Amino acid sequence: MADVKVIILMGSDSDVPAMRGAGNVLEQFDVPYEVHVASAHRTPDKAMKLASEAEGRGVKVVIAGAGGAAHLAGVLAAHTTLPVIGIPVASKHLKGFDSLLSTVQMPPGIPVATVGIDGSMNAGLLAVSMLALSDEGLAAKLKDYRLNMASKVEEKSANLKNIW
Amino acid sequence: MADVKVIILMGSDSDVPAMRGAGNVLEQFDVPYEVHVASAHRTPDKAMKLASEAEGRGVKVVIAGAGGAAHLAGVLAAHTTLPVIGIPVASKHLKGFDSLLSTVQMPPGIPVATVGIDGSMNAGLLAVSMLALSDEGLAAKLKDYRLNMASKVEEKSANLKNIW
Amino acid sequence: MADVKVIILMGSDSDVPAMRGAGNVLEQFDVPYEVHVASAHRTPDKAMKLASEAEGRGVKVVIAGAGGAAHLAGVLAAHTTLPVIGIPVASKHLKGFDSLLSTVQMPPGIPVATVGIDGSMNAGLLAVSMLALSDEGLAAKLKDYRLNMASKVEEKSANLKNIW
Amino acid sequence: MADVKVIILMGSDSDVPAMRGAGNVLEQFDVPYEVHVASAHRTPDKAMKLASEAEGRGVKVVIAGAGGAAHLAGVLAAHTTLPVIGIPVASKHLKGFDSLLSTVQMPPGIPVATVGIDGSMNAGLLAVSMLALSDEGLAAKLKDYRLNMASKVEEKSANLKNIW
Amino acid sequence: MADVKVIILMGSDSDVPAMRGAGNVLEQFDVPYEVHVASAHRTPDKAMKLASEAEGRGVKVVIAGAGGAAHLAGVLAAHTTLPVIGIPVASKHLKGFDSLLSTVQMPPGIPVATVGIDGSMNAGLLAVSMLALSDEGLAAKLKDYRLNMASKVEEKSANLKNIW
Amino acid sequence: MADVKVIILMGSDSDVPAMRGAGNVLEQFDVPYEVHVASAHRTPDKAMKLASEAEGRGVKVVIAGAGGAAHLAGVLAAHTTLPVIGIPVASKHLKGFDSLLSTVQMPPGIPVATVGIDGSMNAGLLAVSMLALSDEGLAAKLKDYRLNMASKVEEKSANLKNIW
Amino acid sequence: MADVKVIILMGSDSDVPAMRGAGNVLEQFDVPYEVHVASAHRTPDKAMKLASEAEGRGVKVVIAGAGGAAHLAGVLAAHTTLPVIGIPVASKHLKGFDSLLSTVQMPPGIPVATVGIDGSMNAGLLAVSMLALSDEGLAAKLKDYRLNMASKVEEKSANLKNIW
Amino acid sequence: MADVKVIILMGSDSDVPAMRGAGNVLEQFDVPYEVHVASAHRTPDKAMKLASEAEGRGVKVVIAGAGGAAHLAGVLAAHTTLPVIGIPVASKHLKGFDSLLSTVQMPPGIPVATVGIDGSMNAGLLAVSMLALSDEGLAAKLKDYRLNMASKVEEKSANLKNIW
Repeated sequence: MADVKVIILMGSDSDVPAMRGAGNVLEQFDVPYEVHVASAHRTPDKAMKLASEAEGRGVKVVIAGAGGAAHLAGVLAAHTTLPVIGIPVASKHLKGFDSLLSTVQMPPGIPVATVGIDGSMNAGLLAVSMLALSDEGLAAKLKDYRLNMASKVEEKSANLKNIW
Repeated sequence: MADVKVIILMGSDSDVPAMRGAGNVLEQFDVPYEVHVASAHRTPDKAMKLASEAEGRGVKVVIAGAGGAAHLAGVLAAHTTLPVIGIPVASKHLKGFDSLLSTVQMPPGIPVATVGIDGSMNAGLLAVSMLALSDEGLAAKLKDYRLNMASKVEEKSANLKNIW
Repeated sequence: MADVKVIILMGSDSDVPAMRGAGNVLEQFDVPYEVHVASAHRTPDKAMKLASEAEGRGVKVVIAGAGGAAHLAGVLAAHTTLPVIGIPVASKHLKGFDSLLSTVQMPPGIPVATVGIDGSMNAGLLAVSMLALSDEGLAAKLKDYRLNMASKVEEKSANLKNIW
Repeated sequence: MADVKVIILMGSDSDVPAMRGAGNVLEQFDVPYEVHVASAHRTPDKAMKLASEAEGRGVKVVIAGAGGAAHLAGVLAAHTTLPVIGIPVASKHLKGFDSLLSTVQMPPGIPVATVGIDGSMNAGLLAVSMLALSDEGLAAKLKDYRLNMASKVEEKSANLKNIW
Repeated sequence: MADVKVIILMGSDSDVPAMRGAGNVLEQFDVPYEVHVASAHRTPDKAMKLASEAEGRGVKVVIAGAGGAAHLAGVLAAHTTLPVIGIPVASKHLKGFDSLLSTVQMPPGIPVATVGIDGSMNAGLLAVSMLALSDEGLAAKLKDYRLNMASKVEEKSANLKNIW
Repeated sequence: MADVKVIILMGSDSDVPAMRGAGNVLEQFDVPYEVHVASAHRTPDKAMKLASEAEGRGVKVVIAGAGGAAHLAGVLAAHTTLPVIGIPVASKHLKGFDSLLSTVQMPPGIPVATVGIDGSMNAGLLAVSMLALSDEGLAAKLKDYRLNMASKVEEKSANLKNIW
Repeated sequence: MADVKVIILMGSDSDVPAMRGAGNVLEQFDVPYEVHVASAHRTPDKAMKLASEAEGRGVKVVIAGAGGAAHLAGVLAAHTTLPVIGIPVASKHLKGFDSLLSTVQMPPGIPVATVGIDGSMNAGLLAVSMLALSDEGLAAKLKDYRLNMASKVEEKSANLKNIW
Repeated sequence: MADVKVIILMGSDSDVPAMRGAGNVLEQFDVPYEVHVASAHRTPDKAMKLASEAEGRGVKVVIAGAGGAAHLAGVLAAHTTLPVIGIPVASKHLKGFDSLLSTVQMPPGIPVATVGIDGSMNAGLLAVSMLALSDEGLAAKLKDYRLNMASKVEEKSANLKNIW
């Protein structure tokens, strides 16, 4: 745990299914990470502390997911100059539409790198691409990952005649 | 200024026109108030300090307005148990639709009393109605205000034949 | 029942599941309340009578929930100067989006303190925060409630490793 | 004025431009009508009185226009069994989208016959079509009106070569 | 069948559940009606013929329901000067939002009296209110219906303690 | 005019600016076309006649533009088996959002080839691409058009340093 | 396979149920077609190659379906001057609303003929109508198809009394 | 120009005003960058070439802005494993709502780091934060920038009394 590169925060433990994709990707790329439940509203001090101290601990990227009036990513971004990736978690009634607007429409000065609704896998890949800027091994792995993904699409296309 | 009852916060001084209505109402009801520019993202520490210390200073109600990914009211509500009134300020592109969802769709546990887009006059009246719960003079004034408002509508109706 | 502090109105008894959270909170804080089915459209006279007479009976806060063209909170607010909290109840087709706009976009002069879609728990907490302005015991309970809520988030975070 | 057939109500005198079309049509068809400013929120008693007494006075159709959380048509419909036509008036920020949902999404039991945003001309025509059900002269005029409208479209088409 | 007063058209027989409410109401008020499947797109000639011939047959009101790009009510309104009531039927993906806009946003000159999404019961009541303009018996029944509806709400309110 | 290949219809002559782009493209490709004002609602018979007779006259493609509850393209498609291209014309209040849904969400069986809001230039190009399927000269011109378009983008890119 | 007239591409094999309607129609009209999985993002080279080479192989129409940020149809249209029909596939959270806007709102110069959400049957019919422009047999079949469709609606109408 | 770190692409030179903020920030932080007009639809080969060759040239971050069916950022992301930042440029009719959904709702595997509508300043800051992960001088400048930004908010708050 000494060299955690990414921290993942979510507003509630009910967000685990929507967020797990980020962990899956980071594990696949052997990127050490930590995961926390921290709410911008219910435990703001913890959330801010995690953000403020991240850079000093060697963390490079913060990933945050929340639903509804999703303030978590923005609040974390206000307390660190590390890149913050925001995942709008699908909400019960408005299906993540509220989460998306609350995450992406940040005011000038404090960006949140927003992915799609429940887009945790892409959040993980975006974090890897940032880390890969100064890690050639990771950059090479990322290229392999892409090729592998293309191959799988090809296999599906070849198999299409069986399910069409 | 010793007995400030309401504090008004806005994310940017460009929000003044959208927020002035709250001040107008409070002045009309002789409710002492303070106004601050404080951003959930650019000056989060100031915003939180204002919220955390408000109750100790005798403040009763917090009014907050912001646009876009409007986190200000929610962030303030996370740092005080006083009632927080949120004003979704009209945004340039999405016309306050993003501001509204970011303000109102708060998670269970931390409410924001949300008014309409650019609804600062109503935010002021809502604050007055809360203060009036323990101030009979204010309650009486509020009833007069309503009667006066109805009279004005009546005048407009009487005058309608001239502009129809 | 002599000292009812909050009245809860809903447009239909099918709204009970969406509204029960307000009752849960009020019970938890020992705030006496009443609950009624009253429709702005089907029983407007009853709705208005409840609103008009509330203050005289010592009621301090009105909570109203309705779905679709949700006029109930606005109609009640037109007949009392007490603070009215509006709960946009999720509708079948538009998922509460219509309810939200119908509740929150009130004209200048008659505010409704709107919470999120199906946000009855927050409506209850908002009512408590208003009552707490003149009740130190309630104010203290509200602070405890917040601390307790933060502890629960902490427990969930500590337990996250088991469900991640 | 003794035999007013239609009453037109609007929430504010600023709605006159959006509402005038209804008056134009009624005048063109020689249908006697009255016009009032009456707000569901600011002068609810007047609004309800107008609705409740309409049928007794020989009124046949009620037309109501309002913007934002547009409750006027619904509130009137709650106080009369005459057909009520609702005009969602374009609102400043959400462009009548809120007005439309607030007007049309009425609960089962209390219908509002809703026309398009700022659709006052169509509200007038709809009222005429209802009155024409028991007035053959009016029905004949309505058919002429349609033919005349078609002729004007034809003229425009013929003239198209000049403006294309 | 000689004295059919209302015709109900729907774009597809899959719309029956969404449309049945109109029939229920008309039966309850003993208003004779007919029902047809007729598509603005798949059987336009039939749809137009039904509209064009309606008035000559003594029909007074046309009710039409369709989903998606819901053109049926508008197309019928183009072929009759009788009042046309449009029911936006809930669509699979956009939940009737497309149906609503396609039904209500008619151009000046050709109104459609639009009710809420899947609002067939209200369409029936609206038709009854139009017929009642020249039928005192029906007008009296409509008033009874309202009182009865209010009583049912009262019963539900009285019973609320058992389900709260 | 003997060999008109495309007919362009619009609901109102106020749509000319939004529709002119289709004419510009057709002229640029030397495709003979006709233009008409014809409303699905105000002159339905003319609209249907134009659609029904088009194929017999040698017309290959129908282009139709309308705003709001934009039924024109769908109604034309119901009366011809030629390809119908629909242009959702920007509406005053909802900015073409209603026009888009009314045009594109057609029921199974009757397609409308929909382009973007006010997308008349693309409607023209789409018509050309359909005609080019059996006209090699036109197909060659269309390829040149694309290359020319790419060159213009390149020029703009080269010139970017002057306006950045 | 030598004379494939239509190629159908989809972004993922999970789109098969939403896309199958296009194949059904083409089979019904004996139009030879091919189907591929090709992603604008995961296998862009394959997608572009299929588009670029289509015309040379005798293909006449390209049908593409994708969901979310649905770029496939637009990307294909950028690499061919054949008509490209876009099917916005319903997405999990936003129900195809994102897919629709991503598909239809193309910039001037590169059109996509967009059908409704999950409108694959209509995409097939639109392709047939384009091919029929230079194939009289196909044009005749298309007319029969329409008549048959109308008959089925008539049958449903006749049967309505049994299910009403 | 030898050590360009960021490339900025936009779909049209009309996007310059919406995109200039990214250049301003990069200049303020002395980050060398290049700017191009390249369209995913009109010059797809150029766009892809710029993306494919970026990493080999030492580029670290790609910023792309487009409006409407905004495919540019996604198409670039499909051709590079560098982080791609997408700016949804405000569109004429739907105000960037279409651009936002087209940019952010990317499928699993190919992320785009999306900022708010017209959020080019934040795109620049996000790029800087990524570069700062391996450049301590830049990281220090970014912290200064934040402090400076907070000071300016403070000045505005102090000056608020003059403009309130």
